[in-house]
Amino acid sequence: MAGVHAAVSTFSHVIEVAGVIAFAVSGFVEARQKKMDLVGVFTVAFITAFGGGTLRDILLDRRPLFWVEHPSYPVLIFGLALLAYPFGRHLRHVVAERAILYADALGLGLFSVTGAALAAGENMPMVVCVMMGVITGIFGGVLRDVICNEIPMVFRHGQLYATCSFLGCWVYLLADWAKLGPTVPIIAGTLVTFMLRVIALRFNLTLPK
Amino acid sequence: MAGVHAAVSTFSHVIEVAGVIAFAVSGFVEARQKKMDLVGVFTVAFITAFGGGTLRDILLDRRPLFWVEHPSYPVLIFGLALLAYPFGRHLRHVVAERAILYADALGLGLFSVTGAALAAGENMPMVVCVMMGVITGIFGGVLRDVICNEIPMVFRHGQLYATCSFLGCWVYLLADWAKLGPTVPIIAGTLVTFMLRVIALRFNLTLPK
Amino acid sequence: MAGVHAAVSTFSHVIEVAGVIAFAVSGFVEARQKKMDLVGVFTVAFITAFGGGTLRDILLDRRPLFWVEHPSYPVLIFGLALLAYPFGRHLRHVVAERAILYADALGLGLFSVTGAALAAGENMPMVVCVMMGVITGIFGGVLRDVICNEIPMVFRHGQLYATCSFLGCWVYLLADWAKLGPTVPIIAGTLVTFMLRVIALRFNLTLPK
Repeated sequence: MAGVHAAVSTFSHVIEVAGVIAFAVSGFVEARQKKMDLVGVFTVAFITAFGGGTLRDILLDRRPLFWVEHPSYPVLIFGLALLAYPFGRHLRHVVAERAILYADALGLGLFSVTGAALAAGENMPMVVCVMMGVITGIFGGVLRDVICNEIPMVFRHGQLYATCSFLGCWVYLLADWAKLGPTVPIIAGTLVTFMLRVIALRFNLTLPK
Repeated sequence: MAGVHAAVSTFSHVIEVAGVIAFAVSGFVEARQKKMDLVGVFTVAFITAFGGGTLRDILLDRRPLFWVEHPSYPVLIFGLALLAYPFGRHLRHVVAERAILYADALGLGLFSVTGAALAAGENMPMVVCVMMGVITGIFGGVLRDVICNEIPMVFRHGQLYATCSFLGCWVYLLADWAKLGPTVPIIAGTLVTFMLRVIALRFNLTLPK
Repeated sequence: MAGVHAAVSTFSHVIEVAGVIAFAVSGFVEARQKKMDLVGVFTVAFITAFGGGTLRDILLDRRPLFWVEHPSYPVLIFGLALLAYPFGRHLRHVVAERAILYADALGLGLFSVTGAALAAGENMPMVVCVMMGVITGIFGGVLRDVICNEIPMVFRHGQLYATCSFLGCWVYLLADWAKLGPTVPIIAGTLVTFMLRVIALRFNLTLPK
């Protein structure tokens, strides 16, 4: 069992890093499209990656914040910003777009479910747990778009994104309520979010107009 | 006396629900004008209704947040979003515009005065109490406009809005300072804000240019 | 020694007031360019002056907030807004532009270093101290631009601004780590930020494109 736990922990750490990088890359790309300099590119990437979790922690009054506890993450984003900066707006062509979309979908799943789990751990009502999950998953992107002076992409009519996070959080909560242990609900919720997002991308699923 | 208290409490609960719905409707309308989908419509309505109080609670470090303590409110907004969504941009024609303006004015009064009262209860300086009152009353609308990529309506030259909240908060604080009991100051401040707002709408009152 | 401390304390208080006024003036000017009324002018000026420190305190969970502890500051901004309002968009011509740029550079230095010092006092990792310093120095301006519906100036390609704050915070942390006492690091970091900013303005220094 200890081996299983360690494997799950390593696996979720790998997803976490992949998700953070995917979120940061979407920040790099948008900041460069807006002709920002290195300061802007770093800040927007950082806010995209950690804005959702930071907002959740402020709403739940949890400290220290994730990136305060793990200062290697800001350093990672700073290093990536230095690397990505010279590519400018062409970054999108340099990195495999499909790889980013998949990493982003994994990050969306893990961040959402983690957010819901943290709220559930503080005995919040289920509705609030789901909201905290969705906020963790999507508000980095919302803040990115607000700072880049755009209407948040996740609120515009388009392929399902927040909805995948919403349903994945419910799957997590149901599996948690069914007492399926500490790891199964996390994996189930993350996978459901990920798979729904991949299906939405593949079949161009949207909410009804 | 107990009967009077209960009546005031019921009355302020009715105003609260009316105000929340009026604020949410202004969020629905703006989100639909920006062609947002159901996710955006719900989020913008929710932020319009609860953003001001949430910001106040974060600034004063009060938890749990209002909508965490009363999770029926997010559910109410979600239900309203589902109901309002099919009407799209025509929602403004469906709901009586005058009824919304009056409900909004009542909500502005109650939310502002409640914000000032919470700050006063924590022995904040009077200036800070007034600021917390005005923030509670107007920042939901400010955040709605920021997310919808507009300059906040309440900051543009137009019929008095924040000013009504500002004066109503002072009325509350003076009545509280004069030891008029727990309910009279709340009622007085709410009514003054409401009536000033109605007068501003009726006679097109603005701040000097 | 007591005399030196008192002199430093008075000096930093003078810089603080000058910096707050310089930040507020940049808020006045932008709010007026956007044709905001007195409510908007006051709010934008206030957020420009205190938004960075408020965000830092929320992230670090410090209370009371600076302007809650010193309510004379909101009153000062309100008085300045009343004074500045009639000049409208011509305010820029009324106040000596060079004086504002110098006062802004001093404020940037003092606010940044104070932010880093507060984080260092809570034993945050050095990377986080620098981030808190830069946030304190620049996020008032970022929020000003977000509310005024502009891409934040500090993120656009232009004369070094955040970079001066970043380097000044490192100077403070190195001097603090070298145990140069409580005042020398503050003065050193503030001066380095200030001088870098003045050099950037004078020689039009920018980050590489």
